[in-house]
Amino acid sequence: MFLSKLDSVKNASNLLNKHQTVTDVELVSIHEAHKRVLAEDIIAFHDSPPFDKSAMDGFAVIAENTFGASQSAPKEFKIIDAIGAGDFSDKTVGEGEAIVIATGAPIPEGANAVIMKEYTTTEGDDLTIYSQVTPGENVSPKSEDIEKGQKILDKNTFIRYPELGLIASAGYDEVRVFKKPTVKVIITGNELVEPTKEEIDKAKIINTNQFTIKALVEDSGAVCEIGHAGDTYDEVKDAILEASKTHDVIMTTGGTAISKGDVVLDVIDEIGEILFHGVAMRPGKPAGAGVVNGKIVFTFSGQPVAAMSQFDVFARKYLFEMQGRSFNFNVVKRTSELKIPSQLGRTDFIRAVCDNEYAKHVLNRGSGIIRSMVEANSYIIIDENDEGYQKNDLVNVVLFDSLLW
Amino acid sequence: MFLSKLDSVKNASNLLNKHQTVTDVELVSIHEAHKRVLAEDIIAFHDSPPFDKSAMDGFAVIAENTFGASQSAPKEFKIIDAIGAGDFSDKTVGEGEAIVIATGAPIPEGANAVIMKEYTTTEGDDLTIYSQVTPGENVSPKSEDIEKGQKILDKNTFIRYPELGLIASAGYDEVRVFKKPTVKVIITGNELVEPTKEEIDKAKIINTNQFTIKALVEDSGAVCEIGHAGDTYDEVKDAILEASKTHDVIMTTGGTAISKGDVVLDVIDEIGEILFHGVAMRPGKPAGAGVVNGKIVFTFSGQPVAAMSQFDVFARKYLFEMQGRSFNFNVVKRTSELKIPSQLGRTDFIRAVCDNEYAKHVLNRGSGIIRSMVEANSYIIIDENDEGYQKNDLVNVVLFDSLLW
Repeated sequence: MFLSKLDSVKNASNLLNKHQTVTDVELVSIHEAHKRVLAEDIIAFHDSPPFDKSAMDGFAVIAENTFGASQSAPKEFKIIDAIGAGDFSDKTVGEGEAIVIATGAPIPEGANAVIMKEYTTTEGDDLTIYSQVTPGENVSPKSEDIEKGQKILDKNTFIRYPELGLIASAGYDEVRVFKKPTVKVIITGNELVEPTKEEIDKAKIINTNQFTIKALVEDSGAVCEIGHAGDTYDEVKDAILEASKTHDVIMTTGGTAISKGDVVLDVIDEIGEILFHGVAMRPGKPAGAGVVNGKIVFTFSGQPVAAMSQFDVFARKYLFEMQGRSFNFNVVKRTSELKIPSQLGRTDFIRAVCDNEYAKHVLNRGSGIIRSMVEANSYIIIDENDEGYQKNDLVNVVLFDSLLW
Repeated sequence: MFLSKLDSVKNASNLLNKHQTVTDVELVSIHEAHKRVLAEDIIAFHDSPPFDKSAMDGFAVIAENTFGASQSAPKEFKIIDAIGAGDFSDKTVGEGEAIVIATGAPIPEGANAVIMKEYTTTEGDDLTIYSQVTPGENVSPKSEDIEKGQKILDKNTFIRYPELGLIASAGYDEVRVFKKPTVKVIITGNELVEPTKEEIDKAKIINTNQFTIKALVEDSGAVCEIGHAGDTYDEVKDAILEASKTHDVIMTTGGTAISKGDVVLDVIDEIGEILFHGVAMRPGKPAGAGVVNGKIVFTFSGQPVAAMSQFDVFARKYLFEMQGRSFNFNVVKRTSELKIPSQLGRTDFIRAVCDNEYAKHVLNRGSGIIRSMVEANSYIIIDENDEGYQKNDLVNVVLFDSLLW
């Protein structure tokens, strides 16, 4: 009887780390690779640019021939050819000669610079220039971005848009990435009904976790399927067992049934292993996790805010790292506008509104108050070794923006 | 001849603002509403919770009856009923009576608190409690989160996961949101080929903008289709005209053809209106925009980094605000680890690596160097009125994380 000993957030996290799994590797088209995580090093198949490339529309010349040219002392050249984008010229630029060149076209033999069109006039084959250029000016040298054979990205790199461009540039039309984890969320709670504008039956409550947890899973790069189970031992057991065969990760919300204790944890205890249950944190104390058929099971509260915080503290990192992407809170400092009491031995994740300087915690902190999460853009984290903060203390903050996939 | 006068970033932005359009409104299922933007105020159809709700598994009692109870001085109660989640009891709790109650179930008449199961023992109908509770303890009062009839979210709110939960909780099974803008990206450049591991024909270059710009569009909540056009006036004209009938926004990359000047801008000048062309910024000076058939056209450079920066400076805000979501750079301060020269009259967007304190700009800044963008996590912005910074100066920074949809 009475409360069993609570795990610390750190202990619970360590237990999860020990059971961290990583998804398989799959080959996807470069068209599908945005926001995936590399499961291979990227070794360039090509130089980029593959040749000395004109960076401007203008005229390829020998830079030294332009020295001294100015608006008051123009110089004359003879145009001997023209190179459009995608074309090249077999001619060699000699003294006093110029070749018309488009941005992106290869610099012809002999030339070592491009004078911009804007600083010239032409009449037939006669080119007049009103400015000088230095050797290499307006030329993007061969392989300045990528050298053929060079490793340009490491395995485990997250593919944002610049990485995507670089991978394409290196010649990859498909790329090895970690598979997206498949997550089955099992919503328990006989009281839950779907959102409706109509009157709701007595004792029933609208099911919001199916929406928030699915959105959180998708915000972690994973794929989510929602399921439901009644609050009975057998229904929960069947649902978890089935999900452990079809999905990479299982999450449950709620699942309390007074007559039998916490059904979800009892089930996991029978068919698998409980890693922890009960964590010294607020909100989210009933947080738990276990392993069934080698698959991790996160057991979240039915209370919406508690469930979101439990996800943020435990599941987000797990899902990121399943995909080969390391994840840790990026803790920044803010000045607290209010006094924040806390309790030694407990880690608080306090919903807060932060600007670039100050943090102000949301006052209504009930773990069922979704509006408190709506008002917030960050957590103030109070470590288990701190008893809270005074007004104007520097506090540790994690911005929600920094949590996104 | 010579360079035409460049617009300032501010002028160019103002011109875009004047032509800002907003997408139509559509009704989507709550299941599809994550990361959309509200096109209506949300007025609650229900209280949430809809009744005084138990926050714990335990026993509903009259709090005053528990006063003085402790482990050494337990108190006795008689259990008269049990309420599971989703059920309710018609009985009224009297003096010395208790009703078994599950988390989420409605508090029965008469009771005003719940004593947690952990602080009790039972034998048949006899309940012994070892702790006292105060009135309201472990009860989530009716409507503590949402009051029926109340406006709980404003039009133009971005729907993150907490907002999604709140909207569902208020009874919405579908919700009015702004449509996702459809964007046609027209890639020009006869030199461009698809990514391939095989040897590339002389004078050809792999097309990377199709990947980076599409990813950027998707990172702005919009839908992207890629098209291609040869570097001729007619092909570009046909592509832009067609896209102006089928899409909300048009973007082009490259499109220079030396013999005729800048084909893309010439086309826009004929079939529409040029808003600006040439901006005092680095990278991205050739940035332009116009309007064709009432649709905005962004003309980006062919140079990959210039195109990405032009997108960040001009197109991202436009796409956000088309969907009713306001967007401005969130400028934060960092200490520059290096001296950064700049030029009066030009706004620099310098790729940089920032931690929570320092900023260090990426050294290779060529507008074709995709790796410079890969190395970066932020821009240092140098205003047109600044001539650069000394080492250890505080500089204005925009973190890439803060740009995401």
